[in-house]
Amino acid sequence: MSKWIYLNNQFLPEEKACLHVSDLSIQRGYGIFDFFKIIDNKPAFLEDHLNRFYQSAKQMQLPVLKKREELVSIIYTLVEKNDLSHSGIRITLTGGYSSDNYTLAEPNLILSQHLFPFTTKEIFEKGIKLITYTHQRQLPQVKSIDYAMAIWLQSLIKEKGADDVLYHTNEVITECPRANFFIVTKDGKLITPVNNILKGITRMKVLELAASNHKVEEQPITIDDIKNAREAFITSSTKRVLPVWQIDDCIIGEKGINPVSSHLYKQLLNLEKSHLLQIAE
Amino acid sequence: MSKWIYLNNQFLPEEKACLHVSDLSIQRGYGIFDFFKIIDNKPAFLEDHLNRFYQSAKQMQLPVLKKREELVSIIYTLVEKNDLSHSGIRITLTGGYSSDNYTLAEPNLILSQHLFPFTTKEIFEKGIKLITYTHQRQLPQVKSIDYAMAIWLQSLIKEKGADDVLYHTNEVITECPRANFFIVTKDGKLITPVNNILKGITRMKVLELAASNHKVEEQPITIDDIKNAREAFITSSTKRVLPVWQIDDCIIGEKGINPVSSHLYKQLLNLEKSHLLQIAE
Repeated sequence: MSKWIYLNNQFLPEEKACLHVSDLSIQRGYGIFDFFKIIDNKPAFLEDHLNRFYQSAKQMQLPVLKKREELVSIIYTLVEKNDLSHSGIRITLTGGYSSDNYTLAEPNLILSQHLFPFTTKEIFEKGIKLITYTHQRQLPQVKSIDYAMAIWLQSLIKEKGADDVLYHTNEVITECPRANFFIVTKDGKLITPVNNILKGITRMKVLELAASNHKVEEQPITIDDIKNAREAFITSSTKRVLPVWQIDDCIIGEKGINPVSSHLYKQLLNLEKSHLLQIAE
Repeated sequence: MSKWIYLNNQFLPEEKACLHVSDLSIQRGYGIFDFFKIIDNKPAFLEDHLNRFYQSAKQMQLPVLKKREELVSIIYTLVEKNDLSHSGIRITLTGGYSSDNYTLAEPNLILSQHLFPFTTKEIFEKGIKLITYTHQRQLPQVKSIDYAMAIWLQSLIKEKGADDVLYHTNEVITECPRANFFIVTKDGKLITPVNNILKGITRMKVLELAASNHKVEEQPITIDDIKNAREAFITSSTKRVLPVWQIDDCIIGEKGINPVSSHLYKQLLNLEKSHLLQIAE
């Protein structure tokens, strides 16, 4: 049976969820979104994601025509209709049907649910390889739909046998297209960039979890810092905490030895579990 | 009666031209386009625009599944069906319906026709005011659909009583979102940026036209250069040649005195006319 998608005021069978070509996402790449996990049919850290969604919308001058409680109710209805126990929900808000293909119109709101491979113990142990690339996302604090550079780089990433790209400007690291970046220094400090990035929800959780065991600093990381790091990892809702073994030609620390990210991954899983337990059935 | 839009292999009534929400333009802002004028039902400088369209597609790793002669035939059929004597045609090519919302798929091809205000003598004489803003378009040599910054800046442009924005990086000018930028120096030289810009078709025509009367240089322009300029103007298919009277708080030259851009505007109109006359009825 087909999945359901919510579009503006209707639940539609997936294949019927279409936007007219005058929408400003199609015409001008203008829109925002957010994405959160559904585990056992419960949304993970929904309040945090909705906070960021409304924030992105405001910063991009897109009115959300649904109140927060309406949006929550739509999300729970979608979860019930689709019954995809382990999945993700994406809320997208576009620039709307513009009469002149340029001026913002009433936004189109789309909620779609997707099966998604979350990081498991096996994926964690495999770790990933990144390549670096000079790029600064525009309006970085907004979770916009602008992934043109990330999509464009997919062929290079594949060619280099890597898993993803790490953006930097003049050797100062910012983020991966869909994940935040952390290093553990030789003296056990946890560092993650804070400027010109999208502040991930998982990044926030990891910073909170780490604070009790580590010295934690939100500050710039250079490519040189990475070379001297003991561990490196990325964080995102789907990737959770995922070790980085190699960046370009540089091997990080010792492969398979990652006590900090390993502990944070377990802490995060526990936090998720206790959070989900608090949500009423 | 409704206009016609061409979508993939069909001519559709405008209101039926929709893309599924899984398209990578909606999901990730990924796509390219080109835009050319239709005058007396004839396409202006079509060969140049098609050259650029195929070039943009190639650079963005988007296969165009129509041969050039097929595309030309579709354009002429669209012109005949719509009969919008003075208008513009936009060819859009998107990242396609992606199964994972990230990987490029078979592109969707859209041809739509729009009524558009071209620059006339009255608009030319009014001229425009620009504000400057620090921004560098990503993949600038590609006519991508990424206008997120331009759309986002519309409210600031309005607030400042301006008509458009001029992008720069560290005071080195690049372009307007939809137009190229020129100055005429005190000693009569015509200068336009060449790096990190989209090379407009009208820009190319103006450079060719100007070469016989002026010293022409494609080189960086700084904000200081603008302050000392005698004239400034922008070029684009719809704007043709359009004088800029003011940039931020700086008045350019003497308002209403613009012999160079005035002459180039007339030359461009003549070139357009003779070009269109060469197209068989």
